[in-house]
Amino acid sequence: MRLSQFHLHTEKETPAEAELASHRLMLKAGMIRKLAAGIYTWSPLGLRVLRKVEAVVREEMDAAGAIELLMPSIQPRELWEETGRWEKFGGQLLKIRDRKDAEYAYGPTHEEVVTDFARHELASYRQLPVTFYQVQTKFRDEIRPRFGVMRAREFLMKDAYSFDVDAEGMAASYAKMHAAYTRIFSRLGLRFRAVLADTGAIGGDASQEFHVLADSGEDAIAWSDTGNDNDAAGYAANVETARAAAPGPRPAATEAMRTIDTPTQRTCEAVAELLGIPLQRTAKSVAVVGHDADGGPQFVVVLVRGDHEVNEIKLSKVPGLGEYRMATEAEILEHLGSEPGFLGPVAPAKPVRVVADLEVAAMADFVVGANRRGEHLAGVNWGRDLPEPDAVADVRSVVEGDRAEDGGVLRLMRGIEVGHIFQLGRKYAEAMGCTVLDAAGKAAVPMMGCYGIGVSRIVAAAIEQNHDDAGIVWPEAMAPWTVAVCVINPKNDPAVAEAAAALHDELAARGLDVVLDDRGLRPGPMFADIELIGIPHRVVVSGRGLEAGTFEYRARTAAEAENLEREALLERLAGPQGSRH
Amino acid sequence: MRLSQFHLHTEKETPAEAELASHRLMLKAGMIRKLAAGIYTWSPLGLRVLRKVEAVVREEMDAAGAIELLMPSIQPRELWEETGRWEKFGGQLLKIRDRKDAEYAYGPTHEEVVTDFARHELASYRQLPVTFYQVQTKFRDEIRPRFGVMRAREFLMKDAYSFDVDAEGMAASYAKMHAAYTRIFSRLGLRFRAVLADTGAIGGDASQEFHVLADSGEDAIAWSDTGNDNDAAGYAANVETARAAAPGPRPAATEAMRTIDTPTQRTCEAVAELLGIPLQRTAKSVAVVGHDADGGPQFVVVLVRGDHEVNEIKLSKVPGLGEYRMATEAEILEHLGSEPGFLGPVAPAKPVRVVADLEVAAMADFVVGANRRGEHLAGVNWGRDLPEPDAVADVRSVVEGDRAEDGGVLRLMRGIEVGHIFQLGRKYAEAMGCTVLDAAGKAAVPMMGCYGIGVSRIVAAAIEQNHDDAGIVWPEAMAPWTVAVCVINPKNDPAVAEAAAALHDELAARGLDVVLDDRGLRPGPMFADIELIGIPHRVVVSGRGLEAGTFEYRARTAAEAENLEREALLERLAGPQGSRH
Repeated sequence: MRLSQFHLHTEKETPAEAELASHRLMLKAGMIRKLAAGIYTWSPLGLRVLRKVEAVVREEMDAAGAIELLMPSIQPRELWEETGRWEKFGGQLLKIRDRKDAEYAYGPTHEEVVTDFARHELASYRQLPVTFYQVQTKFRDEIRPRFGVMRAREFLMKDAYSFDVDAEGMAASYAKMHAAYTRIFSRLGLRFRAVLADTGAIGGDASQEFHVLADSGEDAIAWSDTGNDNDAAGYAANVETARAAAPGPRPAATEAMRTIDTPTQRTCEAVAELLGIPLQRTAKSVAVVGHDADGGPQFVVVLVRGDHEVNEIKLSKVPGLGEYRMATEAEILEHLGSEPGFLGPVAPAKPVRVVADLEVAAMADFVVGANRRGEHLAGVNWGRDLPEPDAVADVRSVVEGDRAEDGGVLRLMRGIEVGHIFQLGRKYAEAMGCTVLDAAGKAAVPMMGCYGIGVSRIVAAAIEQNHDDAGIVWPEAMAPWTVAVCVINPKNDPAVAEAAAALHDELAARGLDVVLDDRGLRPGPMFADIELIGIPHRVVVSGRGLEAGTFEYRARTAAEAENLEREALLERLAGPQGSRH
Repeated sequence: MRLSQFHLHTEKETPAEAELASHRLMLKAGMIRKLAAGIYTWSPLGLRVLRKVEAVVREEMDAAGAIELLMPSIQPRELWEETGRWEKFGGQLLKIRDRKDAEYAYGPTHEEVVTDFARHELASYRQLPVTFYQVQTKFRDEIRPRFGVMRAREFLMKDAYSFDVDAEGMAASYAKMHAAYTRIFSRLGLRFRAVLADTGAIGGDASQEFHVLADSGEDAIAWSDTGNDNDAAGYAANVETARAAAPGPRPAATEAMRTIDTPTQRTCEAVAELLGIPLQRTAKSVAVVGHDADGGPQFVVVLVRGDHEVNEIKLSKVPGLGEYRMATEAEILEHLGSEPGFLGPVAPAKPVRVVADLEVAAMADFVVGANRRGEHLAGVNWGRDLPEPDAVADVRSVVEGDRAEDGGVLRLMRGIEVGHIFQLGRKYAEAMGCTVLDAAGKAAVPMMGCYGIGVSRIVAAAIEQNHDDAGIVWPEAMAPWTVAVCVINPKNDPAVAEAAAALHDELAARGLDVVLDDRGLRPGPMFADIELIGIPHRVVVSGRGLEAGTFEYRARTAAEAENLEREALLERLAGPQGSRH
C-alpha cells in the first residue's frame, strides 16, 4: 500500500471535546469523524484497524465451531413484546415507526431475533448444540453518548447465541466461548481480565465480563493475586459483584457499651479519629426503604464497616430489598429519632429491620451512631446491646487488600468492558415458545447462552491501554499496517524513491502488512504521523543510508533508532516482532 | 467444512407466498428467513453466498483504487435538509426520532454523509481524485416490499463516491468504476448488460445501470446486436431511456386527406385492420396537460406511431411537460371536441400544442382520429392538412427490431438492476458547500460521481438467471461451496466415511471450497439438498465405488454422472471448471 494512494488525514490540533486519550487520538489520527452525537464515520485508516479486530474475532468464533449468520438491524415490536422487553429495555431502545405506522426497534441486541430464528429452524435435539453468531451494527440510544466510539450509540458488535438441551450442555458451550474470548484478546495483544459479573438487564444464571485493563476504565475490577496476567485462573470479578473471603468468627465482647460525645463528628472517619481507634472498629448505618412481606414499605438500617462502602447491586439482591430506595430525612427522623450523622441500629425510635454486612456481623465492641444528635455509642455488641441482625449478607464492595476466596489477596484495577458472556438458561426460549424434541420425543425448551464483544469499542480500549505522548502504540495484530517504510525526499532523489519502493514490495511479498510513506512530507511531519497512527515498525530510507548500505529502523516502543543492513532488517521484521497479515 | 457441523435447513414444501423463482428457492434452500415485511435474516448458508459476492466486489473496488471507509446507518436530518432531500426523497426515507426528539433517517444512500466527510477531510486539489466506498446496510421503506431480498427494505449495498476537480476527471473516475463493475459481474459469472439509464431521484449528468439478464426481470432493456454478450461496446439502454436511430426524411405526400367511417374502431389496430394497412401507417394521439410559458395549464396532443407507446420518462423531459398529467375526458371534449377513441391533431376545437414523436414527424399519408365520433382521417400530411408540429421529440419507447444509433438492430431483454453508476456533477458538493483549493489557490467545488451495487440483490438476481427444476445452479464464484463430497451410508461403512473425509481434506488442501455431506441422509434426500442449494460439483463416495476404485462425479449442469478414478477426478476439479476460494 502506498500512502499517496490512501486517504490519511491527521489533525495538527488536539480536539478540545475529547476527554479520553483514545477519543483524542482517534480524532487526531483521523480514524473516526463525528456525524452526530454518538455516531461516527470510520475513515479508511480507522476501518483498517476495525477490520483487523473483526477478522480475529471471526477466526476464533469459527475455530470454536460457532456458525455465522446475519440478522437484520430493524426488528419488529411484536417480537420484543413476547419477552416483555419492548417496555422493560428502557430508553436505550431506539423505537421506529415505518410509513405504515408499524413499530420497530433498531436492534441493541438480538436475543429475540435469534430465538425466533431458532424456533423455526431447530426441531430436534440432534441439531444441538449449536452456536450462531454475527458481526453486525447495533444501536443503543445512550442518554450521554461520549468518549468517541467507547460509548457510541451506533457501534459494531459480535454477538453469539448458543442453544443446548440441558444445563450441562449450556455450561460447555459457555466454556467454549470463554476460551474463544481468551484467545481473541490474547491474539489482539491486549492485557485483559475475565471477571465474574452481574447479569443486569440481559438476565440469566451466570456471566463473566472481559475487561481491557486501563487506568481510565469506567469499571473497577478485583482480582486475586493467585491469578496470572490475562488468565482467569485466579478469582476475578467486577467490583459490582466481587466477594471477599468470609470473615472469621465473631470475637467475644470485652467492653461495656458507653455513650461518646461527638458534637461535630458526623462520619465514621471523624469519630475514629476522635477516639483514636482504627476506622475498622466503626460501623456505618445507611437508611433505606425496602418492602415487607406484604409488599408495603419497610424501613431498613444497613450496616457496613466504617472503611467499607455499600454495594448497591449486592444490596438490591437481599430478599425484600430488590426495589429499595434511600430513606428521606423525614423517614429517618420518624424511625430512628435522629438526623443523619448520628444514626445507628441501637434503640431506634420505632422497630426497624437491620441488615448487617458479613464483616459487621462478625464485629464485637464496635462504634455506631446513638440516634441522638452529637452522640455515638462505643463498645457495642450484638445480642447484648441490640438484637442479632435480621439479615446478614455480603452488601459491601471489596477493597484493595481484602482476602480473596481462593486464598490470595484482592487487588483492584480499572477496566474497560469489551466482552460479556452469559448463561441465559431458558428465559428467552421459554418466553418465545422455542422448543425442540428431546431424545424421548418430548418438546423441550433449550438452554441458551449469549456472548457479546464490542468490536468497535475494542479499538478505543486498545488505545487507552497502549499510547504515549506521541500517539497510539498499536499491538501488532491491530495496527493499520505493521511496518511503515518512510522515504526521505523522494521527489529529488529518485534512487531513494526506487530503493524504498523495492523494499516495500519485498516486505509485502514476504507477507508483511507494509505501507510506503511516499507522500513527500518533510521527515518531521512524516515521522509524527507514523508515530501518531501507531505503526509498530518504522524503516527510513534516505540517501545517506543508501550510501552507507543501511536502513534506519525503529520499533514504535524503542527509545532509539538503529541502522541495519538489509539482511539484518529483514530478519528483524520477520522475527517474533514482525507480524504477518 | 463438514455439513454435520453446519446449520443447513432446507424446506420440503414450496413456500406459497413466493412469486419469483429466486424468492421461492432461497426460502426452500433455507438461505433467508423473513423477520418482517422486506426484512430478512441471512442464514449461515445464505450468508456464505452473500460474503462471496461481497468479497469480489471489495477486491475489484480496491483494485480500481477506491478506498474503503464505513459511514453510519443513522444520519441526522440536518444533513438531508442541506440538499433538500429530507422532504424530496419521499416515503422510502425511514425517519426516526431519538429519545431527545432529534430527527434522523436510516440511510437509504450516503451522498449527504460522504459529502460532509469530504468537506471536512478534503482541502486541496492535490487530494483528488479520490473515490471512497463502503459495504453497508441500507434501509428503504418500500411501499410494497416483495420478492424476498430482490426488493427488500433492509439490504446490503456497496456504495462508492468519487471526487474530482473537473468534468474530465469525473468522467475518468466514472470510467474506472464502469470497468470495475464489468469485472465484478464477469467474475461472478453472470450474464449482464451495462445500459444507459435515466438519472432519476439521484440526479446528475449521465448514468448507466448494470442489469443481470433474466426473463423475470422488472426492467426492459434494449441493446444493439453490434454488442457482444456482457460487453458494453454496442449501444444498450434501459427502455425507459433507450433511443432508436433517427428516421429518414419525410416522404412527399401522395394522397389526399379523406374521412373514413370507423363506427366501432377506437384503436389504431382496429382502424389499420379495417383499412387493410400496416399499423405503422397510423398515429396515436395522447392528450395530456402540461404547462405554458407562464406556468399555466396547457393542453397538448402527443403523437406516436400506431405500433409505438409513449415513453413517460422521455415525454416528461420535453420542455414545458415536466409535470404533465393525463387530460380528463372533459378537457379532451373541450379542446378537441371529441371523445377518446377518435382523437387527432387535425382541426381541434381549440388551438392545442402538438408534440410529435420523431417517427410521426417523418410520416406522410398517415391515419389519425378525426375528432368526430366514428370517424378517422386518412392521407393526412404535415404542413398541408395541419401545421407542422409545435415540437418534435423522441417520446416513444423503442421496440424490438428498431434500428440502433450504432447501426445495429435493437433487441429487447428483461433485466434485473443490480448496479447503477452516476456522474453527479456539482449537485451535492454545491448544496453542501464542499470546496477544495484548486491549483490557482481558489476554492473550487469538486465534481462527484456515485456508484451503487445491490450486494444482496445480486444473490437473488443470480438465482433468477441460474436455476432449474431441481433448484439453484450457482455460478462457481457465488456458490456456498464449489464441491460437495457426498458420503453414502457413513455410519455403517467406516471405510467409506474415511475415504470421503480423506478426499474432502485433500480437496480442501488443494484450495477448493469443499463441503463434506456427512449428515448420514439417504442418497435421495442428500442429493436433492445438494442440487437445491446449487453446488456446482458433486462427488459421491460409496462402497461400490471404492471397490471399483472410482468416485461418481456430476457437474450440477450435466445430465449424467460419470465414474472417475481418483486422478481423473482431481484433474477435473482442478480444471477451468474447478474454482478455488
